[in-house]
Amino acid sequence: MNPASSSSPGPAPTPSGLTLAQYLIRRLQDYGIRHVFGIPGDYILGFYTQLERSPIQTIGCTREDCAGFAADAYARCNGMGAVCVTYCVGGLSVCNSIAGAFAEKSPVVVITGSPGLRERVNSPLLHHKVRDFRTQLEVFEKICVAATELTDPSTAFREIDRVLDAVARFKRPGYIDLPRDLVNVVPTVSYSYQKPDTTSDPLVLQEAGEEAERLLTQARKPIILAGVEIHRFGLQDRLLALAEQSGIPIVSTLLGKSVIRETHPLYAGLYEGAMGHAAVTQFVEESDCVLVLGAFMTDINLGIYTANLDPGRCLYATSEQLRIRHHHFQGVILSDFLEELIRRQPATAPRPLPAGLPPRNPPYVLQSEAPLTISRLMARLNEQLDDTCVVIADVGDSLFAATDLVMSRRTEFLSPAYYTSMGFSVPAALGVHFAQPSRRAVVICGDGAFQMTGQEFSSLVRHGFAPIVIVNDNSGYGTERALHPGDWKFNEIHGWNYSRLTEVYRGGTGYEVRTEGEFDRALTKAWADTSGPSLIHVHTSREDGSETLRRLGQRMSQRI
Amino acid sequence: MNPASSSSPGPAPTPSGLTLAQYLIRRLQDYGIRHVFGIPGDYILGFYTQLERSPIQTIGCTREDCAGFAADAYARCNGMGAVCVTYCVGGLSVCNSIAGAFAEKSPVVVITGSPGLRERVNSPLLHHKVRDFRTQLEVFEKICVAATELTDPSTAFREIDRVLDAVARFKRPGYIDLPRDLVNVVPTVSYSYQKPDTTSDPLVLQEAGEEAERLLTQARKPIILAGVEIHRFGLQDRLLALAEQSGIPIVSTLLGKSVIRETHPLYAGLYEGAMGHAAVTQFVEESDCVLVLGAFMTDINLGIYTANLDPGRCLYATSEQLRIRHHHFQGVILSDFLEELIRRQPATAPRPLPAGLPPRNPPYVLQSEAPLTISRLMARLNEQLDDTCVVIADVGDSLFAATDLVMSRRTEFLSPAYYTSMGFSVPAALGVHFAQPSRRAVVICGDGAFQMTGQEFSSLVRHGFAPIVIVNDNSGYGTERALHPGDWKFNEIHGWNYSRLTEVYRGGTGYEVRTEGEFDRALTKAWADTSGPSLIHVHTSREDGSETLRRLGQRMSQRI
Repeated sequence: MNPASSSSPGPAPTPSGLTLAQYLIRRLQDYGIRHVFGIPGDYILGFYTQLERSPIQTIGCTREDCAGFAADAYARCNGMGAVCVTYCVGGLSVCNSIAGAFAEKSPVVVITGSPGLRERVNSPLLHHKVRDFRTQLEVFEKICVAATELTDPSTAFREIDRVLDAVARFKRPGYIDLPRDLVNVVPTVSYSYQKPDTTSDPLVLQEAGEEAERLLTQARKPIILAGVEIHRFGLQDRLLALAEQSGIPIVSTLLGKSVIRETHPLYAGLYEGAMGHAAVTQFVEESDCVLVLGAFMTDINLGIYTANLDPGRCLYATSEQLRIRHHHFQGVILSDFLEELIRRQPATAPRPLPAGLPPRNPPYVLQSEAPLTISRLMARLNEQLDDTCVVIADVGDSLFAATDLVMSRRTEFLSPAYYTSMGFSVPAALGVHFAQPSRRAVVICGDGAFQMTGQEFSSLVRHGFAPIVIVNDNSGYGTERALHPGDWKFNEIHGWNYSRLTEVYRGGTGYEVRTEGEFDRALTKAWADTSGPSLIHVHTSREDGSETLRRLGQRMSQRI
Repeated sequence: MNPASSSSPGPAPTPSGLTLAQYLIRRLQDYGIRHVFGIPGDYILGFYTQLERSPIQTIGCTREDCAGFAADAYARCNGMGAVCVTYCVGGLSVCNSIAGAFAEKSPVVVITGSPGLRERVNSPLLHHKVRDFRTQLEVFEKICVAATELTDPSTAFREIDRVLDAVARFKRPGYIDLPRDLVNVVPTVSYSYQKPDTTSDPLVLQEAGEEAERLLTQARKPIILAGVEIHRFGLQDRLLALAEQSGIPIVSTLLGKSVIRETHPLYAGLYEGAMGHAAVTQFVEESDCVLVLGAFMTDINLGIYTANLDPGRCLYATSEQLRIRHHHFQGVILSDFLEELIRRQPATAPRPLPAGLPPRNPPYVLQSEAPLTISRLMARLNEQLDDTCVVIADVGDSLFAATDLVMSRRTEFLSPAYYTSMGFSVPAALGVHFAQPSRRAVVICGDGAFQMTGQEFSSLVRHGFAPIVIVNDNSGYGTERALHPGDWKFNEIHGWNYSRLTEVYRGGTGYEVRTEGEFDRALTKAWADTSGPSLIHVHTSREDGSETLRRLGQRMSQRI
């Protein structure tokens, strides 16, 4: 499913006679939401009851923050996702996952119940209340693009639409708080949905297009640097059209990885400043015209600010700003700017990919008895990946080492590569499988991250999905060891027999491997087994780490 | 250790030559903190390094919110606790546990790192950042009694003291954000700590004391209703002194349970309005003078507002207010009011405990083949508990059924009985064992709650503690079934083989039981085994529930 399609919901629904809950459910369906993740609780039980009676399926998770991560991954694949939790104990438990969705622009709707308005008279100490009845709303205002408490039936439909419009437009989380005594209230005012006007200013667009065309045409070494918003706004096909028409090569940021298939002849690799491959870095930085599309200029995207991009040679277009060299254009929408460039067909200089790029299909020769390393694990995995997979990398070396994987299809690679919250990956697999049941998640997760949220494997068992979860056990917080060398006790964690969890969760198959040969056999077996999830516990040494992690450690250790 | 002692730290430290980190660590020690719970991350690694070099031990947890719960339980037993996490991904992950500490008045200090001031120039997109650099601070301002970001070395010591003073005084969480490039900075200004003046207004205190004495002396049926603040402010001995001197019987709220030993001749039981035992309810509500000390008037404490307490017959004293009948006295400290009452020795009418109170040591006759129920589990457990135990009840029927346990010693019973956040109990056991290593935690936890944070059992194994963790598996969210009858799918959870987790965590002993006989044997064995933690997986039926839960369900279902 194309995420972009969900930002243009169909005809306005007819709200006549609908309750607040029914209207909200209908509008979620308009945006393509078929599953809502969460945990019920008494303040939200009324709404859960309405959900269970609707075509939307509620997906119970082990923890609320897992539900948040699952909804985030679902949103990245589906165009919008939703999490539904009870007041405070539920809502305040998803703060971190929702903050991550805000930071990485994932359109997640947070739906929460709260004490009924009739219960609030004289401000009693109702259970789950923190400071006052608005505390939760005030917290979410900080980490959402729009937030509302539906305290007035006469404005509730409009408020629901305001929040959902903002979520769809800005690809950030929104918050809807439904007091429990209003769930089944039917507003007595008439209302019809007006889709907001979101068009570019034509004169600004024309002027920006002219200048961009001129710069691209004059350039001798143009390049496109594509980022995560190409995924979020469903612009992958249009990006490809621009590149193929003009012949401009493409590199991707880490957050944008897999924005086009990485075997495409115009794809030059991941740009990560001094952290990345030297040939890619040089190819980007010697460009005289860098067209940056939908990329966040984050520290990790920029190789901890080792990126050396001269703004005087950049065209920088995102959903939030359009900047050409040192001046700004306001009121131009990213997709309109992209269309304008395609329409103009800039005649650019051909620019062949340089020699020395990392190999597309690096040969992998099994060394059966060799102790496994994370880099060799990725090399073996690379051989196995196909079009049916979605790779989900947790943070740390699961992410850094995974940069060497070659994605053969777009939107195949998910990771919290900017916000970098540990524990994203296993719950995300649940979201991916519900969003795209025909595909298969391959999760790469460190031992520390797995201990945070690994229990969501239980939900994968429950629903009969067959992802492959690889737990890289290097006996502690390996990334921190690289960032802050020394024999610090706080980087130790308690070792688990991860593969035995399949016995606890009553399903799936566990493997425990130490050598390349053992991993090869486990992966082959797991790949053939679609009866349930697989969990491969991989032992690597405490000192193991990818080249990217080593370079990152060198860069960051001086800041700590 | 008496929690109260920690609110009066010793002589002011001499900060000359200390760095910000060293001063903060020294001040935490002044408040009796010997352990800090948390998870390191790059923005806090510098401070962790200083902690590791200090006498304070860092206790790694599997997840940040588990660290928050552990610190909360530690604070309840020790007088103050602390959690130390990295920026946003760490901080926003403890929102729920810190909100719980706020709601239930537990003095927890949240210490977090953040990007260095030098890194913040031009507001770059540093990893973990959400909206701007103040987002995390703004969130914690909503759920803490005091919060500070130490951006200026010249005021940093004063700010640290302001937050710690507030935490100690109000028994609520405080927040200290230490940018990573200031950790090792030595302020160049001189500073010495001034303990804040917190004394009662003597004239107000005298007037209130006179009126209270008169009301108590005139009363024919006085009673003391004691709450959680007696625990928090370490006033148990003084409460006992007042009760024994005057002969006034005592009842406790649910949050205050175990405020005096429940076998004391003056203890009449738990007061929970219509939710509780009829004889206790009647004994309280027919009183003509109820001295409420340190109790929160919460919905669950009040039996979902079925409590029938006439304010015209109440003296209501907490750390936040003193109200006698319908008028308020301002500027009177709870402990001073209690001392004033003791000093005045009110000559009150003797009031014997009524007949029909729940038995103190109810006889338990084992029915070996009978399927276990939660009520019978508690009855068997009651027989086993002794002075060395701390009972930790998670929310739901673990709490409601546990109200029947008879605590033989004070501060033996911990539960999030107001905020009612599931998953408190297993991490809390870790906090209790570090705060009181000579005691033993007995955890009662539902299956839903255990799935949220049960992985903290791994830390109990790691540190060689020997708590007994009872997982009551009634196949789903049993409390919600009682609150909202119907065959709702969202109340189902995936069943685990909980007892097999000891194999995953490489330590402890697992048991799985279905009958009273099996539970009896498992509990006996676990009790004798102090080599590591025990995990008893108890199967009860989906329909099982305590009497208290049934009464609660009847009261609350109409609100959902």
